[in-house]
Amino acid sequence: MPTNTRIVLASRPHGRPKPTDFRLETVDVPALRDGEVLLETLFLSLDPYMRGRMSDAKSYAKPVEIGAVMEGGTVARVAESRNAKFGVGDIVLAHTGWQSFAISDGAGLRKLDPAAAPVSTALGVLGMPGFTAYAGLLTIGRPKAGETIVVAAASGAVGSVVGQIARIKGARAVGIAGGPEKCAFVRSELGFDAAVDHRSPDFAAELKASCPDGIDVYFENVGGHVWDAVFPLLNEFARVPVCGLIAQYNATEHSGTDRLPTMMREVLTRSLTIRGFIQREFLDQRPAFYRDMAGWISEGKVRYREDIVDGLENAPDAFIGLLEGQNFGKLLVRVAT
Amino acid sequence: MPTNTRIVLASRPHGRPKPTDFRLETVDVPALRDGEVLLETLFLSLDPYMRGRMSDAKSYAKPVEIGAVMEGGTVARVAESRNAKFGVGDIVLAHTGWQSFAISDGAGLRKLDPAAAPVSTALGVLGMPGFTAYAGLLTIGRPKAGETIVVAAASGAVGSVVGQIARIKGARAVGIAGGPEKCAFVRSELGFDAAVDHRSPDFAAELKASCPDGIDVYFENVGGHVWDAVFPLLNEFARVPVCGLIAQYNATEHSGTDRLPTMMREVLTRSLTIRGFIQREFLDQRPAFYRDMAGWISEGKVRYREDIVDGLENAPDAFIGLLEGQNFGKLLVRVAT
Repeated sequence: MPTNTRIVLASRPHGRPKPTDFRLETVDVPALRDGEVLLETLFLSLDPYMRGRMSDAKSYAKPVEIGAVMEGGTVARVAESRNAKFGVGDIVLAHTGWQSFAISDGAGLRKLDPAAAPVSTALGVLGMPGFTAYAGLLTIGRPKAGETIVVAAASGAVGSVVGQIARIKGARAVGIAGGPEKCAFVRSELGFDAAVDHRSPDFAAELKASCPDGIDVYFENVGGHVWDAVFPLLNEFARVPVCGLIAQYNATEHSGTDRLPTMMREVLTRSLTIRGFIQREFLDQRPAFYRDMAGWISEGKVRYREDIVDGLENAPDAFIGLLEGQNFGKLLVRVAT
Repeated sequence: MPTNTRIVLASRPHGRPKPTDFRLETVDVPALRDGEVLLETLFLSLDPYMRGRMSDAKSYAKPVEIGAVMEGGTVARVAESRNAKFGVGDIVLAHTGWQSFAISDGAGLRKLDPAAAPVSTALGVLGMPGFTAYAGLLTIGRPKAGETIVVAAASGAVGSVVGQIARIKGARAVGIAGGPEKCAFVRSELGFDAAVDHRSPDFAAELKASCPDGIDVYFENVGGHVWDAVFPLLNEFARVPVCGLIAQYNATEHSGTDRLPTMMREVLTRSLTIRGFIQREFLDQRPAFYRDMAGWISEGKVRYREDIVDGLENAPDAFIGLLEGQNFGKLLVRVAT
């Protein structure tokens, strides 16, 4: 049997995770039992939600236990099979975490067709991030033709899809990204109507100038100072799907002016909708998503970019960088080829 | 022609309004022109939203100008008429403000049938406050049988209706009110399942004990420390229609811990919906409201209480008291009989 290389949670981070919050281990892979398959990880997805799993604060999912393998979505190849539904060489979407091998009884695995799309896209544009964008924007944001939709992390896995779907629906897409290179990509490669650099000293003014008719939908995936710039621009009846708050995941305290009363006042006087969601709430929309998104990709209406890091041992540093916006596109770790 | 007694805005309040922010004047009523009616105010409605009109902060409606008559809904009698649609003695719902007489061209007036219901109810349970409760609860709150609905100012014009409709829909209604007398009324007269006194030193614990299954709908009309007690109890997928924030209308500054990041985190992890609204957004539901509410009142399923102050000159003090919860039931000023 092969040796499994895995990364476990060594300690719960206080604030920004440190490399020492993770530990790389190697262990033997046990023999398969009837009904099981041995999965060899090809790609591991790194996503902001994992920061929540490292914390024991109450959330929508249980935290990863200390000493347990870090959680994560994967694309894997069936290396051995004692399950009639899976043959050796099959490529599957799994959730086997930060490790090179895993044993599965087949539950929850989804076979991928490498001829239909690069298999890595099952972790991005055709996977959970793409579906988060699709369901949150269309069900909660409900963009109408001519409206202005703003999304941050616009070169990332979720934001890039939000803006492109907004344009497909006839809306105006304004992306926020970190740095001129990402902004140029958002405009010229993804086709957003405008892109604004949140690192610019004039960020708030530039965002306002890019939204002359205000903001009708703000797809919230970052929080922090981006929220502060967006909030005054929200129009009456604006919708704010909230799928992430990456800017505050590492925060350890909040002091200063209490912004809650002002926010609630504006919620009231501008009839705003603020709605948190997790994509699994909308599972019944998955078939429509696969159909629509595959069509949009093949028509060239949705484009995507992957940021691939080689080697499982580099996952912790890549993840720490993700929380600071250092990735450029959907962040993946290539664990094996 | 009669003399009009009116109350104008003398100055914009900083914080809690003072009696000197209002000024009582008497002026002659001009002669009617063709198409006009002279309205004699019977009842003036006092409502929390009027605090917003006294301020020049940006809001969903224009402020009352300094020196202008304070805005407000009224029930009035046609005292003279040069409009074929209205006869002397007709009773109408109007929006003629804090004054004893007003001239109208008939636009926006709605004739009331004194035989159908006491005409004062057109300013309360069968009027704007009742409709605010109806539309906000049913459209945004969407209570399901067995769910727990919480509303503050539960003996007031809006809150009392929210809880009673929740019970009609098979939900559990928990009211929050100020003092044991109001709480007893909410339970025994309005039939709420529980009532909690927000002035109690153990308010938060008592609210929690009254909501053993958490809160599925919080109808927000007060804000402040009630919100702080409610927020931790909100269940996954809870809905929060926001129609008022009376506890913070007089606030002049907000300092201390910034509660916004925590709130947004909970919005995300509990998939909360927070939605501000003004009842006029739902005007198409008015016919259904009149039909349903009249039926519920006649069946005894919705009860109401009025707090009537005699004399227009007492409106400022009554309004200042309203902002501090001193009224007990829908607050009205009887201007004439």
